[in-house]
Amino acid sequence: MKVELISVGTELLLGNIVNTNAAYLAEKCAQLGLACYYQSVVGDNEERLCNAIEEGLKRSDILILSGGLGPTKDDITKECAAKVWQLPLEKDQFWALKIREYFSSRGRQIPENNWKQAEVPRGAIVVTNDNGTAPGLIMSKEGKHILLLPGPPLELIPMFEEKMVPFLESLQPGIIYSQTVKLCGIGESEAETRVLDLITSQTNPTIAPYAKTGEVHFRLTAKAESREEAVRLLQPLLECLKERFGDKIYTTTGEQTLEENVISLLKERQMTLGLAESCTGGLLSGRITSVPGASSVFTTGLVTYANEAKEVLLGVKQETLKTEGAVSAKTAEEMVQGLCQRYGVSAAISITGIAGPGGGTPEKKVGLVYIGCQVRDRIVVKEYHFSGNRKKIRESTVTAALVLLRNCLVTLQP
Amino acid sequence: MKVELISVGTELLLGNIVNTNAAYLAEKCAQLGLACYYQSVVGDNEERLCNAIEEGLKRSDILILSGGLGPTKDDITKECAAKVWQLPLEKDQFWALKIREYFSSRGRQIPENNWKQAEVPRGAIVVTNDNGTAPGLIMSKEGKHILLLPGPPLELIPMFEEKMVPFLESLQPGIIYSQTVKLCGIGESEAETRVLDLITSQTNPTIAPYAKTGEVHFRLTAKAESREEAVRLLQPLLECLKERFGDKIYTTTGEQTLEENVISLLKERQMTLGLAESCTGGLLSGRITSVPGASSVFTTGLVTYANEAKEVLLGVKQETLKTEGAVSAKTAEEMVQGLCQRYGVSAAISITGIAGPGGGTPEKKVGLVYIGCQVRDRIVVKEYHFSGNRKKIRESTVTAALVLLRNCLVTLQP
Repeated sequence: MKVELISVGTELLLGNIVNTNAAYLAEKCAQLGLACYYQSVVGDNEERLCNAIEEGLKRSDILILSGGLGPTKDDITKECAAKVWQLPLEKDQFWALKIREYFSSRGRQIPENNWKQAEVPRGAIVVTNDNGTAPGLIMSKEGKHILLLPGPPLELIPMFEEKMVPFLESLQPGIIYSQTVKLCGIGESEAETRVLDLITSQTNPTIAPYAKTGEVHFRLTAKAESREEAVRLLQPLLECLKERFGDKIYTTTGEQTLEENVISLLKERQMTLGLAESCTGGLLSGRITSVPGASSVFTTGLVTYANEAKEVLLGVKQETLKTEGAVSAKTAEEMVQGLCQRYGVSAAISITGIAGPGGGTPEKKVGLVYIGCQVRDRIVVKEYHFSGNRKKIRESTVTAALVLLRNCLVTLQP
Repeated sequence: MKVELISVGTELLLGNIVNTNAAYLAEKCAQLGLACYYQSVVGDNEERLCNAIEEGLKRSDILILSGGLGPTKDDITKECAAKVWQLPLEKDQFWALKIREYFSSRGRQIPENNWKQAEVPRGAIVVTNDNGTAPGLIMSKEGKHILLLPGPPLELIPMFEEKMVPFLESLQPGIIYSQTVKLCGIGESEAETRVLDLITSQTNPTIAPYAKTGEVHFRLTAKAESREEAVRLLQPLLECLKERFGDKIYTTTGEQTLEENVISLLKERQMTLGLAESCTGGLLSGRITSVPGASSVFTTGLVTYANEAKEVLLGVKQETLKTEGAVSAKTAEEMVQGLCQRYGVSAAISITGIAGPGGGTPEKKVGLVYIGCQVRDRIVVKEYHFSGNRKKIRESTVTAALVLLRNCLVTLQP
């Protein structure tokens, strides 16, 4: 079945808020095996909203509208849906009672306009909202369905999860199942070239590549009668990818991020991690510590921006800084050695480079970065040339450091 | 003029990524005085994408498409736009050269499919991409315009800002001029209450408040014949805001970020900065070093996640950690003192807190954070209670630390 998302709200059209609801609903619908080919955003305008609903009903079986169920005059989503299907609005006694309870339990008077929220298009199913005064609604007509959800994510998410999902599941036989295989240390074009035969010959399951900074993800999707059958359909494709990409794949279930993968590899090997950053200035530490529980492996992070800090905190030799420079393979090596020796960590990453826009020279251009990695007694230092602005260079560096650390860890069996 | 946003990408339809590009572009278009009534998302499917472009051209003057300009077979945005306007694709020699340079400077072979990115619909303006291999495109026909942008925000944002904005400005007579006044250390509702009279009486110029984590921004917008006239129109409103908010305003031109402001205050006072982070794990350092030239004031950053690191690197007393705990005002104070004494900085920030989801206790709940700030000889330690998930708590903490440091610096004359 085809589903379509319509987000209603002028604040979305003005870019005041990011449409996280659409991403949430889209992901849920994909998991439910509903094909979503269109999403749209319209403002609180009767003509344009009615048009969007009419157009949506022509091409999709299910419309999910979010936003515009509030008590103010601006909120017209329910009114427009009723108008398109020519249904009168009627007061829902049960929900009127709920509104009365909601306000009296808070010791507040009911604002006059809130009664509007108890009005329901004839025949619609009223869906309880445990976190606000706007009920959700399910309207059905001639095999088509319109679902109305309140806009605030704190109301929309639990309502969708608990009440709308069971309804949507009841509409269809069979399912669509997706799984994401994530790779690092390989470029998008190279990765795609290696699976071109799979892409051109695909029917069911299908495979689609997409790129993130320093990573490539393949989304595998199967249509089947049941989840078990879908998983079975994906198996040969998964095996094929494993064969072609080996340990460039860091997760086949899509559930781990690269930083989570690195932390779990460190845990498996019972190792501790230290980081010394120059041009990334703490971003790598920040990304590592975004993982809850990172503290069990990550003990010390140093942002050694100044040469003096590199000497004092890491024992980088003055001689090295003088002859080779702060941005050099030798400095990266001494930084990583200093980390392991002084702070007793068994794995360490050092970063030194030129993120720009200033600081570049003809010999050492903006984008030149050295990353050192020590895992137990083995030290690797790699030279990189990144392009783009300061932000891009720093982000590319952080991902490259995670990839390098991961590569050094996987070659070391736990 | 009417503008419409079409975001292209199956990963958006499947909810794998959040459409931050749409929010960014919508906000920019609003600032440019373009009316945006529709946003839509379609997948990498020729028929549906062509339909969306055709529909969009019927109701809007300008279509901004983002995504689907990559080198893979999935990327068909340019091809669809050309098809709708029946334009042949031709090889752009200049961009072919850029692609050759891009790969040869990295010592890499050009993957065959990358040549596709040098193909351009006849007559289109090729817009340079400094951060990737997909150029942007501007196509115009019979008073309508189609703008094509690459999907990754790191490529889209600089390209839009630098190249597309001037083009869009050239399409309209007169100008709309916006200026953002940024405040920190004040809540959104308080700030809004204080300017309610200005908001209700506004015509030209207008004033609109926006909340960001820990900050409040007022966007002032004037319509005029020229930039000079617009600036003149804004002057009285600006004076009025300065009078009402005093040094809570850190920039009236919107050109500085909070971290840039802090760094320029440090420079003016010829001070150096040290940071010691626990629960934010390097994010504050990362934000400080996102500013080019931060190295002239920021010398040392420490991520002291483990208690041992707090003792060894900062000289926090074992006694303090034992009796008061790592998350305490006393620990924050000793951290900041250690920074100034041991590393010779004249300003320092320390952060210790519980970002969750684990680690909370009935006495010290998730979200409890202490931030210490030393400026010259003066030490301030503040206690905060943040809500939200790990990410939100860490981001709120970083901003609160910047606000605290700024407040301590502004009371100290340069």
